[in-house]
Amino acid sequence: MSTREGQYRLGAFLLNTGHHVAAWRHPNAWSENGLNFAQYKRLAQTAEQAKFDMIFFADGVAVRREHSTDSLTRSGQIVYFEPITLLSALSAVTEHIGLVATASTTYNEPYHIARKFASLDYLSGGRAGWNVVTSATHAEARNFNREQHMDHELRYERAREFVQVVTGLWDSWTDDAFIRDKETGVYFDADKLHVLNHKGDHFSVQGPLNVARPIQGYPVIIQAGASDTGRDFAAATSEVIFTAQQTLADAQAFYADIKRQAVAYGRNPEHVKIMPGIFAVIGQTESEAKEKYDYLQSLIHPSVGLSLLSGLVGGVDLSSYPLDGPLPDLPETNLQKSRLQLVTELARRDNLTIRQLYEAVAGARGHRTIWGTPEQIADQLEEWYINEAADGFNIMPPYLPDGLDEFVEQVVPILQKRGRFRTEYEGRTLRENLGLPRPVNQFSETPIPATVS
Amino acid sequence: MSTREGQYRLGAFLLNTGHHVAAWRHPNAWSENGLNFAQYKRLAQTAEQAKFDMIFFADGVAVRREHSTDSLTRSGQIVYFEPITLLSALSAVTEHIGLVATASTTYNEPYHIARKFASLDYLSGGRAGWNVVTSATHAEARNFNREQHMDHELRYERAREFVQVVTGLWDSWTDDAFIRDKETGVYFDADKLHVLNHKGDHFSVQGPLNVARPIQGYPVIIQAGASDTGRDFAAATSEVIFTAQQTLADAQAFYADIKRQAVAYGRNPEHVKIMPGIFAVIGQTESEAKEKYDYLQSLIHPSVGLSLLSGLVGGVDLSSYPLDGPLPDLPETNLQKSRLQLVTELARRDNLTIRQLYEAVAGARGHRTIWGTPEQIADQLEEWYINEAADGFNIMPPYLPDGLDEFVEQVVPILQKRGRFRTEYEGRTLRENLGLPRPVNQFSETPIPATVS
Repeated sequence: MSTREGQYRLGAFLLNTGHHVAAWRHPNAWSENGLNFAQYKRLAQTAEQAKFDMIFFADGVAVRREHSTDSLTRSGQIVYFEPITLLSALSAVTEHIGLVATASTTYNEPYHIARKFASLDYLSGGRAGWNVVTSATHAEARNFNREQHMDHELRYERAREFVQVVTGLWDSWTDDAFIRDKETGVYFDADKLHVLNHKGDHFSVQGPLNVARPIQGYPVIIQAGASDTGRDFAAATSEVIFTAQQTLADAQAFYADIKRQAVAYGRNPEHVKIMPGIFAVIGQTESEAKEKYDYLQSLIHPSVGLSLLSGLVGGVDLSSYPLDGPLPDLPETNLQKSRLQLVTELARRDNLTIRQLYEAVAGARGHRTIWGTPEQIADQLEEWYINEAADGFNIMPPYLPDGLDEFVEQVVPILQKRGRFRTEYEGRTLRENLGLPRPVNQFSETPIPATVS
Repeated sequence: MSTREGQYRLGAFLLNTGHHVAAWRHPNAWSENGLNFAQYKRLAQTAEQAKFDMIFFADGVAVRREHSTDSLTRSGQIVYFEPITLLSALSAVTEHIGLVATASTTYNEPYHIARKFASLDYLSGGRAGWNVVTSATHAEARNFNREQHMDHELRYERAREFVQVVTGLWDSWTDDAFIRDKETGVYFDADKLHVLNHKGDHFSVQGPLNVARPIQGYPVIIQAGASDTGRDFAAATSEVIFTAQQTLADAQAFYADIKRQAVAYGRNPEHVKIMPGIFAVIGQTESEAKEKYDYLQSLIHPSVGLSLLSGLVGGVDLSSYPLDGPLPDLPETNLQKSRLQLVTELARRDNLTIRQLYEAVAGARGHRTIWGTPEQIADQLEEWYINEAADGFNIMPPYLPDGLDEFVEQVVPILQKRGRFRTEYEGRTLRENLGLPRPVNQFSETPIPATVS
């Protein structure tokens, strides 16, 4: 075992009523959490008191698809706040914690995204992060004038150009452009404005952005793509990588691969933080934790489990296959390639039936599930950290608020006692807390006249 | 003089450092206000303490155009918060006041807009309003993959369909759709979901929205279009109309015309509130007020004044005409038709030179400018209210924070003493405070099966 020094990072991945597919049915769960601001405020402040690096919100621009009306009506993940508006509101009631929202490059325009995250960065005093996704469903396409979701490779092509435009817009102004000299009447220095004039395959965007350069230079860029294309994109551009890894060996291989690719892109591998998702069920004893997990599993209605699994394997309808038979061979899709592979491997490795498979993924949707005492959870995190499988973890509470409260009250103090987690925030911004450098303005060496016509 | 009873409405139109074109140069002005949340929080709370109906934010999706680098660098309206993120943050630090953001139908997609305003409505407990605009500049087009701004008539066609899609999405769920029955495991009632399946000339949007029906049914819909097409659109769909009117007679004619058109659309004219903009400069004496106004005027750099005027007349470059000569005949443009007409009429009526004209519009950009003692300001508002020229006023502070503070401290108590303005909020929502009915769900009589494929 290696002896890696230092501390790791923690994110709180808050998903409506919790990550377990039946979370909302738990007697203690806040079943209205998706649209209840007072509850999110309480959760964000809890995570901040525990010194988490960030709260993290997923997003989709459609109601989730289900294979039957029955499973649809049983889902607790139907309606929820749009995350940039929610995080903007949370920025006003928190002071230190990072605020990470997911936004799709497939169903947005870069000017809006550059602007909203820059705005959130100013609202929060430098705490914004953008989780870049390319979206995963035909349902989203159908809310945006398309019949079909864009092809996987084309989606990533668009995403690369999208990120290039967004960072270019964030660099519209140098950090010291705004003089605001009341005496002379000059508001900004014309030499410190760069008009982007981007013309590419997917976008024509003149600029400049009508927000000053973000406090962090760029809001922190985060990704979770895990296909070959997704990994390449993440290694080239992202600063935090959120990933689903089941075993230490797989996580180490992923970690080494991303760091190697980042180096190949000329980046410092320390500036790419890898944070696997962790679905932790905590008990005072291991058997109590297991009982809590089994109780959540007992709340899964079969139609919900089957529909969840269908979603994870690219939308294939599994209802015609026997529930207690094996997973059939599945066709390639242009949707979430990596998730399909992960679920298929899990089924083959453990020789699971369809029912067993949906039970296996019902909590964490392919992320690592661990149960045990607070000490055991801490041990498992430490094992991955010291063996270079992770730089930190994105904590996925099974249901809310208990799943977050238990982790904060019982696990975090152990991590802090062991010196593996901060007891005070180091910096003012998310970037400073994560130990990431502030990006240099790509245009600041070559000022361009400010004439805008 | 008629004897109209009742109270009128007040909005606070907060524009960065203030409405006067040289606002930011005033020694007391908050020159960084555009990106300073603490200052906006203070302003919003001030307006709320005074029981204003709403705070109102304009928006554009580009840096404002100027005819020279010089005038561009002298503008204080260059960088500012994106209004939906700003209002989301302000929702967390206010309790009663309405939160109105401008958003363009020309450079947005209806699913995003429906979702963000629904989200803001939940964050704020039912205080969201949407000021629908079609945008006004080529610069905005160039940030969204176009060379030219969309033609005026086409823009309004798109806007009509856009609003139809947005309200259709807000009606995706009946108000009582979400049962969240933990025992049976049913989260919502399938009969209470409507899938929109909109296919029109401009948009194909399947739905449903992934936010529940807004607390207000629909966030309050506001418009300011004043061309013939704009008025027709406003009379058909909007609940508050923000308008620029210079004289009592013009304002009465506009008021009567909109109410008549609303009736022709089968609407109750009481449910369309007309709120002209008011740029008020307040002094302890009339001459002190005039001095304050003249001081602000003295801060206008000629290049800024000329550029402002060019912007108001559709982007025509006026720099080749003598400053102390008359306004030339101007070509029709497809940009803001109504503003061009208003400015032209002002020049002809008072026989103004170009310099005099830009000085005349430098404060309020064509809105009504009044100066005087608090009593005189109150008299002028009352005159328009009782003579059916206005149902309320959108107050445009010359510079911030003083322009708002003075109105709140000196004018509002007079309005309250006269019984013309509330001393407590009547309702919980913006809609209730404005006296507007909560819209019935257009689909609630004809539930459609919830199968989403």
